[in-house]
Amino acid sequence: MSQYQPPIADIAFALEHVVGYPDLAKLPGFEHADLETVVELLEQCGEFMAEVVAPTNRRGDTEGSRLLPGGAVVTPSGFKEVYQQYVDAGWGSVPLPEEYGGGGFPRTVGLVIQELMTSANMAFSLCPLLTQGAIEALLHYGDDALKQRYLPKMISGEWTGTMNLTEPAAGSDVGALTTRAVPRADGSYAITGQKIFITYGDHDMADQIVHLVLARTPGAPEGTRGISCFIVPKFLINDDGSLGERNTVQTVSLEHKMGIHASPTCVLSYEDATGYLIGEENLGMRIMFVMMNSARLGVGVQGLAVAERAYQQSLAYAQERRQGRAIGASGTSSAIIEFPDVRRMLLTQRAHLAAMRYLMLLDASYVDKSTHDPDPAVRARAAEIVGLLTPICKSFGTDLGNELTSLALQIQGGMGFIEETGAAQHVRDIRIAAIYEGTNGIQAADLVGRKLGIRGGASVLEFIATMRELETELSQAGPEFGSIAAELGRQFDALEEATHWMLRTGATDPNAALSGSTPFLRMWGLCTGAWMLARAALAAAATNDAALAQSQLVLARFYAEQLLPASAGLLGAATAGSHDLFGLDAHQLAGVASPRIRI
Amino acid sequence: MSQYQPPIADIAFALEHVVGYPDLAKLPGFEHADLETVVELLEQCGEFMAEVVAPTNRRGDTEGSRLLPGGAVVTPSGFKEVYQQYVDAGWGSVPLPEEYGGGGFPRTVGLVIQELMTSANMAFSLCPLLTQGAIEALLHYGDDALKQRYLPKMISGEWTGTMNLTEPAAGSDVGALTTRAVPRADGSYAITGQKIFITYGDHDMADQIVHLVLARTPGAPEGTRGISCFIVPKFLINDDGSLGERNTVQTVSLEHKMGIHASPTCVLSYEDATGYLIGEENLGMRIMFVMMNSARLGVGVQGLAVAERAYQQSLAYAQERRQGRAIGASGTSSAIIEFPDVRRMLLTQRAHLAAMRYLMLLDASYVDKSTHDPDPAVRARAAEIVGLLTPICKSFGTDLGNELTSLALQIQGGMGFIEETGAAQHVRDIRIAAIYEGTNGIQAADLVGRKLGIRGGASVLEFIATMRELETELSQAGPEFGSIAAELGRQFDALEEATHWMLRTGATDPNAALSGSTPFLRMWGLCTGAWMLARAALAAAATNDAALAQSQLVLARFYAEQLLPASAGLLGAATAGSHDLFGLDAHQLAGVASPRIRI
Repeated sequence: MSQYQPPIADIAFALEHVVGYPDLAKLPGFEHADLETVVELLEQCGEFMAEVVAPTNRRGDTEGSRLLPGGAVVTPSGFKEVYQQYVDAGWGSVPLPEEYGGGGFPRTVGLVIQELMTSANMAFSLCPLLTQGAIEALLHYGDDALKQRYLPKMISGEWTGTMNLTEPAAGSDVGALTTRAVPRADGSYAITGQKIFITYGDHDMADQIVHLVLARTPGAPEGTRGISCFIVPKFLINDDGSLGERNTVQTVSLEHKMGIHASPTCVLSYEDATGYLIGEENLGMRIMFVMMNSARLGVGVQGLAVAERAYQQSLAYAQERRQGRAIGASGTSSAIIEFPDVRRMLLTQRAHLAAMRYLMLLDASYVDKSTHDPDPAVRARAAEIVGLLTPICKSFGTDLGNELTSLALQIQGGMGFIEETGAAQHVRDIRIAAIYEGTNGIQAADLVGRKLGIRGGASVLEFIATMRELETELSQAGPEFGSIAAELGRQFDALEEATHWMLRTGATDPNAALSGSTPFLRMWGLCTGAWMLARAALAAAATNDAALAQSQLVLARFYAEQLLPASAGLLGAATAGSHDLFGLDAHQLAGVASPRIRI
Repeated sequence: MSQYQPPIADIAFALEHVVGYPDLAKLPGFEHADLETVVELLEQCGEFMAEVVAPTNRRGDTEGSRLLPGGAVVTPSGFKEVYQQYVDAGWGSVPLPEEYGGGGFPRTVGLVIQELMTSANMAFSLCPLLTQGAIEALLHYGDDALKQRYLPKMISGEWTGTMNLTEPAAGSDVGALTTRAVPRADGSYAITGQKIFITYGDHDMADQIVHLVLARTPGAPEGTRGISCFIVPKFLINDDGSLGERNTVQTVSLEHKMGIHASPTCVLSYEDATGYLIGEENLGMRIMFVMMNSARLGVGVQGLAVAERAYQQSLAYAQERRQGRAIGASGTSSAIIEFPDVRRMLLTQRAHLAAMRYLMLLDASYVDKSTHDPDPAVRARAAEIVGLLTPICKSFGTDLGNELTSLALQIQGGMGFIEETGAAQHVRDIRIAAIYEGTNGIQAADLVGRKLGIRGGASVLEFIATMRELETELSQAGPEFGSIAAELGRQFDALEEATHWMLRTGATDPNAALSGSTPFLRMWGLCTGAWMLARAALAAAATNDAALAQSQLVLARFYAEQLLPASAGLLGAATAGSHDLFGLDAHQLAGVASPRIRI
């Protein structure tokens, strides 16, 4: 297994030249986070993740987390010590508010830190990721007392957080949950119920775990409107801030999963556990969406991060492994990187990774603009763009996570299928990312059902118009950009056609629109990816680094000519409507309607 | 985990109406294998596989095969007994020559048996599959003494076979192998070397294991021209046919793999082991291709078979799992099969599975024609078609195996990621199929480098012309076939364009042709799949079964309108040449050419 190399140079280029980080750093509150400071910080972070965290990855997979009799969870050997180093270094606090001890850096920087940590060890990274979701919920909706009590230690990482949404009968349909919260005289609530799929629901890396739990109060409305959100600490907190007695939340079991073995996925049982309401009653779904929206981009980044590490490994293997002789090569054997089909697998990974990274950083930069730009109109537009890009980043990013890690494994042939090489672990680990924080199908429904209709469709059409401005720029930039401009033009035409179809159809036949939502989202992923690579190619051409300009041009052209045309190939599926999808009944789907030959 | 339901009705329809089995059964030698007999046989076989073999699948995964101190391999509990039942029932011998105790049924029937067995338990099925490869090598190249000595017990299944090709430095490049074979005075050879990735290289299910081993004799030419093929039995055989002393082949270790845990993947060490030459010296590669070509279609079927079982499980889950309320539905919750995006995932699986099954059975029927048709011209043309279709079936079939099992897992959401449900096992098991028996990249190179040039391209162009005859038929068959005809026309145009480009380019710039080989192969997979489904829809319309006609029409139309257009979307990638693939050097691929900001 090859060493992980943090792609800081790629990231620095993206920040400086592709997503306009220097302008972002000029926003009020980010003055201390100028580009040079940030890149230096990220270099150090990359070093920490590569040298301290990355070596725990394979061990985490083979050992896994274990549930001891009595209900305590033990993480794989070394995790506790590494987590302590992570807390001491303060990596988790960088993008969080200075008011509670954070670094006050942009979310964009936080996202890069998350990429580096996830490449190093995805299962490990889930603990800080979930903590961050809980922090954001508290920041937005907690009252001062809750914030003062919980945020400093959560932001430092001394305490970790969880998100308790799912129940056996309430997965994607959160509104079906049945956990109860009964008010007590002292203002707290008694929480009773069972939650499943709770990531780091218990562990030994921190003294305290802060559960955010969705539950229903007595007489609350049915469905999603009657859900409230509570803080339920693993240990009650004394008035002096020290940890008191154990709250009545217990780990019942751990799941045996396909991947992320080191991350304990808990079934938690709450029995009259003491909880504290966040905000008001029945605000639970709104709070959940704060946690979710932050987490969704983070999950998209997981696809990027794990695929990046898998790619590096496959590239190293392709350079080392000698097998056969490539056409035109001399000597008795060639490194397999000289074979065109291996090149295709490498370049496909490299181009998708670059496109994804640029797109996700762009999304994150709009998150920062939506919170920090002084102009309310800019903030509002930025929030719209975040709403549009986030389901794309989550869904396309994690689909590619699956596809690219599989390509990386394929390059390693039979060795890739052997667990010791680590290629299989990447495939197994990332498989969950297309499922959790809202399945990718739910992301597609979110895009079509919620995001498209904003301002009667004007929001999304404006975004397409912005993307299309690049066609002119490319046409004027020189003949080497000609094929990129032409292909972008063709593909944006198809994307516009699909978008108009969706806007028309969604209004009258939402089921027909939803029927095409997944291919439609992929069209968006391919088009925005190609757009970002073309932007990067133009930006690189404007530097005086010829190798960089060449590199970005090749990536943009390869993507535009060879990967992007799949987008128009999805137009038929995106706009076919629901007729054939519902054309077979369950018997016909099972194949039993075929004639059985009678003997 | 839901029970496996053998899709006999689908298969019977395919045999009778889609691939012309009734005519095949009229060929000399197959008279006893008429359609009714065959379907009855397959019903029984399906019952055996579903009731006896399928229940061992999950246990095989969790227990795995183990290597005992001393070098003996133990298969998971129950495997030995189930294998004995398999031998007693004679399922392995059905398609093999009657002369040695086989059933003399067409290969087409054997392929169905293999599908059913692989759906039941892929890891188990590998033992008979490898045995069959060894049998075919012996049938084609063994002398009478070897055949008489080995074939009857291998065909009955009492003895199993292996294929020993790979060495640590000789994977895809078989010519690099170094295992030595030194002739002895008695006519046998002393075999010395190490082989890796030997499936069922040792196990406890049979008394004898017959290794087919590739090795070099002294003074043999370098590379593939100097390879010979030997039989090396685990136990030497006494003159009376009884088993004698242990041969000097030892299992050194077992691989720890991502999937097919029950299948022991052995490192075998040969030290002066006694071997017997098959055919003549230096015929090894030719013999290997006999084994491989038979096995390659079989590996394609693995993709189909595992995806079929995964599909059945996801369909059952989608009918049972209630979550949220579908648009227009009444009640408090809907089964998730009512959601359009879940329907898309189901129908995508169902349509690909039907297309793959038809295509593979068609390929198998040409195998039978190539061996049994009395007309030498028909035999020759059939062999050409087998050569064309086999890399497509292997590569597209196993790529779809990966993609469809992943869709099946996705439908099951978080539960799919939990190992107990079995969805993850299908994903893990099938991942190897795109790698072994020639990676899918090698299949694509075979298509472009060998198969396309046959008769100066006439062979493949004739096949396209045959496919295009269906356009007229569809246009005349009624308006409901109109969109299928139109889309097939568009896509065949693109396929022809790519094929002509490949024929032109391959002659002058083979590297450029190879650069597009993988997308080109996928275009073939999609086009032949759509063609088979359209044939099936026409055939079903000619029956008087309205539900069947409706079902096949929907599948054909969904595939043509919604899946097939991806094919033309690959035209750019297929015909882009090698320029951009080789446009980045290793440094640029690693991303280090980007400017590092100096602080």
